[in-house]
Amino acid sequence: MASSSFQALPGFRDFPPRECAVRNYLFENWREVARTYGFVEYDTPVLEDTALYLKKSGGELSSQLFRFEDQGGRDVCLRPEVTASLARIAARSQREFPKPLKWFEIGQCFRYEKPQKGRGREFYQFNVDILGEAGPRADAELIALAIDTMRAFGFDEGDFVVRVSDRQAWLDFANERGIDEERIPEFLQIIDKLEREKPEVTAEKLGTFGLATGEIETFIRQPENASLAFEAIREDLEARGLGAFVELDLSIVRGLAYYTGVVFEVFDSSRSMRAVAGGGRYDTLVSTISDGSVDLPATGFAMGDYVIRNFIEEHTDARMRMEVWLQRQSAACDVVLVLADESKRSEALEILSELRGAGISCDMPFTTGKVGKQFQRAEQSGARFALVVGSELPEMKLKVLASRTEEPCHALGLAEWLAERLQQPDGPLLA
Amino acid sequence: MASSSFQALPGFRDFPPRECAVRNYLFENWREVARTYGFVEYDTPVLEDTALYLKKSGGELSSQLFRFEDQGGRDVCLRPEVTASLARIAARSQREFPKPLKWFEIGQCFRYEKPQKGRGREFYQFNVDILGEAGPRADAELIALAIDTMRAFGFDEGDFVVRVSDRQAWLDFANERGIDEERIPEFLQIIDKLEREKPEVTAEKLGTFGLATGEIETFIRQPENASLAFEAIREDLEARGLGAFVELDLSIVRGLAYYTGVVFEVFDSSRSMRAVAGGGRYDTLVSTISDGSVDLPATGFAMGDYVIRNFIEEHTDARMRMEVWLQRQSAACDVVLVLADESKRSEALEILSELRGAGISCDMPFTTGKVGKQFQRAEQSGARFALVVGSELPEMKLKVLASRTEEPCHALGLAEWLAERLQQPDGPLLA
Repeated sequence: MASSSFQALPGFRDFPPRECAVRNYLFENWREVARTYGFVEYDTPVLEDTALYLKKSGGELSSQLFRFEDQGGRDVCLRPEVTASLARIAARSQREFPKPLKWFEIGQCFRYEKPQKGRGREFYQFNVDILGEAGPRADAELIALAIDTMRAFGFDEGDFVVRVSDRQAWLDFANERGIDEERIPEFLQIIDKLEREKPEVTAEKLGTFGLATGEIETFIRQPENASLAFEAIREDLEARGLGAFVELDLSIVRGLAYYTGVVFEVFDSSRSMRAVAGGGRYDTLVSTISDGSVDLPATGFAMGDYVIRNFIEEHTDARMRMEVWLQRQSAACDVVLVLADESKRSEALEILSELRGAGISCDMPFTTGKVGKQFQRAEQSGARFALVVGSELPEMKLKVLASRTEEPCHALGLAEWLAERLQQPDGPLLA
Repeated sequence: MASSSFQALPGFRDFPPRECAVRNYLFENWREVARTYGFVEYDTPVLEDTALYLKKSGGELSSQLFRFEDQGGRDVCLRPEVTASLARIAARSQREFPKPLKWFEIGQCFRYEKPQKGRGREFYQFNVDILGEAGPRADAELIALAIDTMRAFGFDEGDFVVRVSDRQAWLDFANERGIDEERIPEFLQIIDKLEREKPEVTAEKLGTFGLATGEIETFIRQPENASLAFEAIREDLEARGLGAFVELDLSIVRGLAYYTGVVFEVFDSSRSMRAVAGGGRYDTLVSTISDGSVDLPATGFAMGDYVIRNFIEEHTDARMRMEVWLQRQSAACDVVLVLADESKRSEALEILSELRGAGISCDMPFTTGKVGKQFQRAEQSGARFALVVGSELPEMKLKVLASRTEEPCHALGLAEWLAERLQQPDGPLLA
């Protein structure tokens, strides 16, 4: 490969300004909803001791790790997710915080997967967790937050659904049927793969437990009373006016071994893509990570940036909402100074500096050129106003670029006047 | 090591809420100043092809890389800095953007150094670059931005100084003294180490060029007319009212080979710590990275999070300014609902949901407990208001936690009323 074609590694993304703005749109919505729910932000290292993930998973490591030996001979890896690190921090420093902890993180994670549409080797995750509260109200709070996050992006009833399940219901089922404790993970794996696996394979596997596929399907279809936690969650969400977004679906168990109770996934209603978000209760993880020294019930979920972005782009309302936001961001500046007289550059720099000091976003060309050309560039940049600095200083003109109208202004008190002008609509200034 | 003592890798930081808020304070100031200057945000991958850095440095790789082979056999490394990636993106896609590009990035970088106070193995960098403008006005714009960034943190004249130098002045000097072109990097290295190296070592090294230390010191002390670029920059900054922050100091050349002209560093006035920021012109890098297919003059600087944070903590005004910001952030919520009657939980959830939907940050305990205890926890959380939901619904009381005064309120139109109330000071509401 010629070095002139250097590009990002497969599955890694560059974020030139528009892509970065899209990413920041996701981040801003995530932060804003978390803030209204009283969650506080934290972050964890991108690189961690591999043993942390080994401990979390009970000895089985994913084959998708970016794992290597650092210069000090440590076995380290880029984080594939953030919950292990959260459990590590919680185990070490939970005493410093009143319970429950309501924490969120927006972080980049790394998995060596086959890159494809909607999946890369790096991705951002919005992680929201409640630690120190064992009851279903905490699960309901998280599900409500997941729903309100979707609504903040412009999705509503009919666009998506939260499918809630409860591993406890399956544990009770397994118990009643006399399934060995140590074979329960294997049993849950079968349920997890039910929709994707060939029926004869499922039947054979269930057979080793003395079960028929029909029994499983019946249990999924008639789950009344099977999950007390779900009933409590639904009641809670109904009080919030969010009952219509959730349904019980015991076919969901989620792959990861560490979940202990309620689990849920957010899907687009047509189920045309992977889950937009997913999570559940993991009451034993902090204890596992801390070798039993700290016991802290926990529940959480994650939403990745790839799937939500695809969903937004396929949904008219959500896409328009994002575009409006991007449009507002796309202008580098509110005001561009047009230098009509190069001999006034020093005065123009003084004005530029004063306006920026007052928090007004503004710019001025390095090379002056023709005034018409300067106006054209100012328009193309998306700026609202052009401030024409010429030989009449301290008198100037403010040109509204959308309406092409002009307003006189004066260097004296300019920053204050302009800050106020920016608050008003584009049209001609009312007297 | 017992697994119960899992901790972050040496030189890596956890960011529990307060640390994360400090980090976000730096990020917010960086973003805000960049915005007022009309710079747009971009980002680049954390992991890159090692060959990119090899190309940038002309074949010499830092010994401090987190470098490894990925699962696909690629020689990759965690980014030690972001300019190589920026040059890669610029070389590939500069045609899509009007020049000059005014771009900034806030990104985490990784270097395997000995961890010590003020230096870790990961750190965040604020990178600001102008591409496509060769003249000193672009350098002046960047230096002005660096100065205004420092001022945004609460530093002023007398607290810090920008020492500006010009490699071109040294290239001219080397030319006049007949130094071989290929020995120029070696010569610049001697200047770079002048203040740290033993005088006899410097003298010996300079001797190989037929030079005496005195000649070098004289050139540094009498730089008049030696840097035309500096004169233009000073004039520009003086017009902006920022002339007092800069001085010419030819002893600065900066270590990296890729700088081509003006270079500068920001120091605290007492010079008690490493440079707070540094950068300069690198007019040939995009051409190098693209094997000559794209030629784009460029200039930029970076400010790291470690040094600026230490500087802030050692400076009364800057520290107070940060603490005020952190104080405002430390409250998880503006409003905490106090549930005086557990039988009203459903109604309280409805209110909670309505307020959050209106963008008001609020919370409610999962477990009710005594009212006095609830007030106490609301106060400890830093919330401004407690909203008491009890048996008199839809009548409620709003308690101002600072003044312990109460105001009656009503469920009808509550969100609107509360949003307005939050805009007003804490004291008793005026009629």
